[in-house]
Amino acid sequence: MNKTHPFLKSLLTLATLFLFAGIVGAAELDQVVDVQKYNRAIHIMAMLLAGFGFLMVFVKKYGRSAITATYLLVSVAIPLYILKDSFGVLGGSGSEIDSLILAEFAAASLLICAGAPLGRLKMGQYILLGLLFIPCYAFNEWLLLGNGFGLIPSGAFIDTGGSIVIHAFGALFGLGVIMTMTTKKEIDLPVEADFTSDRFSLLGSMILWLFWPSFCAALVAPGLVPHTAINVILALSGATIATYFASIYLRGKISAADIANAALAGGVAIGSACDVASFLQAFIVGILAGALSTFGFAVLQSRVESLIKGVDTCGVMNLHGLPGLLGGISAIFIVDGLSKGSQMLGIAMTIIVAVATGFIVGKIIAMLGRKTLPYEDVDEFEL
Amino acid sequence: MNKTHPFLKSLLTLATLFLFAGIVGAAELDQVVDVQKYNRAIHIMAMLLAGFGFLMVFVKKYGRSAITATYLLVSVAIPLYILKDSFGVLGGSGSEIDSLILAEFAAASLLICAGAPLGRLKMGQYILLGLLFIPCYAFNEWLLLGNGFGLIPSGAFIDTGGSIVIHAFGALFGLGVIMTMTTKKEIDLPVEADFTSDRFSLLGSMILWLFWPSFCAALVAPGLVPHTAINVILALSGATIATYFASIYLRGKISAADIANAALAGGVAIGSACDVASFLQAFIVGILAGALSTFGFAVLQSRVESLIKGVDTCGVMNLHGLPGLLGGISAIFIVDGLSKGSQMLGIAMTIIVAVATGFIVGKIIAMLGRKTLPYEDVDEFEL
Amino acid sequence: MNKTHPFLKSLLTLATLFLFAGIVGAAELDQVVDVQKYNRAIHIMAMLLAGFGFLMVFVKKYGRSAITATYLLVSVAIPLYILKDSFGVLGGSGSEIDSLILAEFAAASLLICAGAPLGRLKMGQYILLGLLFIPCYAFNEWLLLGNGFGLIPSGAFIDTGGSIVIHAFGALFGLGVIMTMTTKKEIDLPVEADFTSDRFSLLGSMILWLFWPSFCAALVAPGLVPHTAINVILALSGATIATYFASIYLRGKISAADIANAALAGGVAIGSACDVASFLQAFIVGILAGALSTFGFAVLQSRVESLIKGVDTCGVMNLHGLPGLLGGISAIFIVDGLSKGSQMLGIAMTIIVAVATGFIVGKIIAMLGRKTLPYEDVDEFEL
Repeated sequence: MNKTHPFLKSLLTLATLFLFAGIVGAAELDQVVDVQKYNRAIHIMAMLLAGFGFLMVFVKKYGRSAITATYLLVSVAIPLYILKDSFGVLGGSGSEIDSLILAEFAAASLLICAGAPLGRLKMGQYILLGLLFIPCYAFNEWLLLGNGFGLIPSGAFIDTGGSIVIHAFGALFGLGVIMTMTTKKEIDLPVEADFTSDRFSLLGSMILWLFWPSFCAALVAPGLVPHTAINVILALSGATIATYFASIYLRGKISAADIANAALAGGVAIGSACDVASFLQAFIVGILAGALSTFGFAVLQSRVESLIKGVDTCGVMNLHGLPGLLGGISAIFIVDGLSKGSQMLGIAMTIIVAVATGFIVGKIIAMLGRKTLPYEDVDEFEL
Repeated sequence: MNKTHPFLKSLLTLATLFLFAGIVGAAELDQVVDVQKYNRAIHIMAMLLAGFGFLMVFVKKYGRSAITATYLLVSVAIPLYILKDSFGVLGGSGSEIDSLILAEFAAASLLICAGAPLGRLKMGQYILLGLLFIPCYAFNEWLLLGNGFGLIPSGAFIDTGGSIVIHAFGALFGLGVIMTMTTKKEIDLPVEADFTSDRFSLLGSMILWLFWPSFCAALVAPGLVPHTAINVILALSGATIATYFASIYLRGKISAADIANAALAGGVAIGSACDVASFLQAFIVGILAGALSTFGFAVLQSRVESLIKGVDTCGVMNLHGLPGLLGGISAIFIVDGLSKGSQMLGIAMTIIVAVATGFIVGKIIAMLGRKTLPYEDVDEFEL
Repeated sequence: MNKTHPFLKSLLTLATLFLFAGIVGAAELDQVVDVQKYNRAIHIMAMLLAGFGFLMVFVKKYGRSAITATYLLVSVAIPLYILKDSFGVLGGSGSEIDSLILAEFAAASLLICAGAPLGRLKMGQYILLGLLFIPCYAFNEWLLLGNGFGLIPSGAFIDTGGSIVIHAFGALFGLGVIMTMTTKKEIDLPVEADFTSDRFSLLGSMILWLFWPSFCAALVAPGLVPHTAINVILALSGATIATYFASIYLRGKISAADIANAALAGGVAIGSACDVASFLQAFIVGILAGALSTFGFAVLQSRVESLIKGVDTCGVMNLHGLPGLLGGISAIFIVDGLSKGSQMLGIAMTIIVAVATGFIVGKIIAMLGRKTLPYEDVDEFEL
């Protein structure tokens, strides 16, 4: 025994050392995983500013305004959402980095919404839109994902990449806004692009396309990131090819606006089930989304605008609304064991909350008057 | 003994716990390393779309087409390569993330190839080019890196960043394509840029430059990433400085096209030995590549075009072809213990396979007719 | 004892195995942390090239030159700084990746400096500027952060994100340069932008904005990255909102140049204390910086230019000089236990070293003559 004791002691010391090293190592690994989320947060920021911002530069005389509006919307949305989150209102996220990513999601939804009335708001009205949108968005997010009012059990609504919570909500909110605030004069005015504004818009489109995997995989576990990323890329590829064929089929020639927008519909639609779909499912969802979105731009948009007497400047219903709904519904067919009832309830609630709150917010914004020259920088910017 | 037994037992429990924690930790660490590869995969995607795409926007009336073509080429190449890989045809990669990165490499080579006939293909012909290119590329990749037909032992051909497999192959394949399909009318037509198309092209160039380290380091082990990255940056810096001096020396004035293109030749040429070169070697390879590439644009291009009776719209021979070959050969001088025979055999096979398959594919594509207005969007796009 | 011995032996073997695995694991984790720094290094490279480069494209006929100058400045600065670092001159960084990031910081400071005389240097003079700037920058960095001459104890000067060392130094050096080399003819010439050059400039601005968190967090420990990133985003958001209101208040209309530039002042000013400030402090620093910077552009610039008889083309004093000084001073109020004396001494030394060395370097550069057509590509570029 005398001989074994020091032996055991040193073993015990070693074990304690390992335990300590293990705990430190695990904590360090957690930090490293958070920094990887941070990287994806930066990718999403590229989408918000250079992506959405430049996609909206297609309006030929409104480039300075579109970019300034993007800057202001993001700068209002993110601090406001983080403020809400740090007080734990409508649910709080666990960590600082999760809070940032959720704030970026909210800002993305806001930018989508702003695409509908784009060019017809004064710069100050974009700020007001941001201040009013974020609480509505957070409320709907809480209903669907935070077990708000106990309507949908936690985890029963599946929307990893935000097809419904982010895209459909933003687009439908925007629809509500334009229903109530488009003037007759504005309805008659064409929204025009030119060659240079088209190239800027296609740049924004590409920035969105290429960082989209990080948007969908932002909060998934490290082990699922590669599969999720490939799914998103396959969905975007499918949508891009489908858009090309649908654009030629429906219009006779290719429309640069179809390419810039509908090619992204695959990313919108794969959102809900991006981490669990198979490669083939992702590719098919992408093809369907691209075709649906192009059909929206080429055929539906003018009819919907007549119906609701509102102008959807960026066609957010075609890019984010319809493909978003497609994505939310597709999850029922893709995700094993998903409760059909909870998923459909979440989608229905989103439609109601978004259109209703959008309509009210549109009425409030409309009280502050109107731009004198729609779709032009000149009345607000030094030239 | 009665006293020591529980002692030993608890030690054993602890050890089992550590073993478990160790295995979990190692698995988590592997996932984290895969997510880091994913980050580089996104950087490469930025190069493919915003980089190559906008570099090709220099053709002044062909911007919408160049970007749409880029979108379609990427959307065909990546799913097709991943499909091939998942069936293990011509060798398969180990993991999902490796598969994605190899698919992106294939897409990069395809985009390089498409730069040669750019502006003279109808949009549908780019899709066909993608479908026919990928199998040829995968075949050559398998010959050089997958011990195809047992010609080159695994690991005997060194090409970490793809100087030969990606760059030279794509450029030489493009050369094969234009040999057979350029018309006399097209040869007489100048390829024109203007001030705005130049600025877009320089933007694409910078996006390629800045993400290039991730292209070369995409698949290297974590411990080698920093050294590889600095090597690539030094090579690009050397090429940029050399391009400036060579452009003035050879032309009297600076050419924006030289800057946009030849500055990147350092990245092309350092590819083969990017992870093992010393800083000084990398800088020198970069200088040589920049000078060679500028000489190609300023002096060689018009002579080669007369010789092969084909127009190389983007000058891919000067940016990817010659610097790629320089890179593959430079590895012989840089990498210790490299088999000169295997390296030269791989280069020779690439030249033969690329030009031959490119020539045949060009013949097939040419059967589908020709754009009515070369280098212009107008015959295919709504304006 | 006979029974326990093999038991103990196997435990010992297991322990040794764990020790080995632990060491390997820790080394791997270190490599992973370095690769994460590498990711931020790429983000910074995006800021240097596409960010600073395109922000400077606002000069309407000088786009090709601004981008080429950016390419050359970066390609001179990074190799030169890495060379210095590898010889350990004026202090050396610990690892390859730290060396790269410090080299990028030096390049950022150089690009800021070059914004002052932008458009009035021949291309070769930018190269000379780079060669002369880097030693001065490294000298000041060594004084403040490397205990140079024993003036400031290591760690006593706080400047995590480089408000003083990078931003203020670059701007003040640029001020020194223009003091001595602006000609009367150049003072009378307006620096003009147009609609397309504005959009390119806003693109550069957005690229800087969105990657700024990686600039400030480049060298902080993994556990501090999320907090630092959110601080930077809040500061930028505050500055963006403040810029909008200040621009309208001071000018009557919005200036696109204010938005493109002053919105970034939050990132400049939060630099010094970015890792320790609270969210609220960061937001307030941002608001102050945005307002101060806009005041600089709208009111101060013309007065300062008359005073020093020099033209500050990009207004670097307003974007980097004043907000940088604000940031360095703000650290005194934000960082607990910071030595007020050391912080103020560092700021004072930076002002003196930067202006003095800038003035001398300006004199040297001026010996090489002058561009014939300021702010135009035409005398140096093939059109």
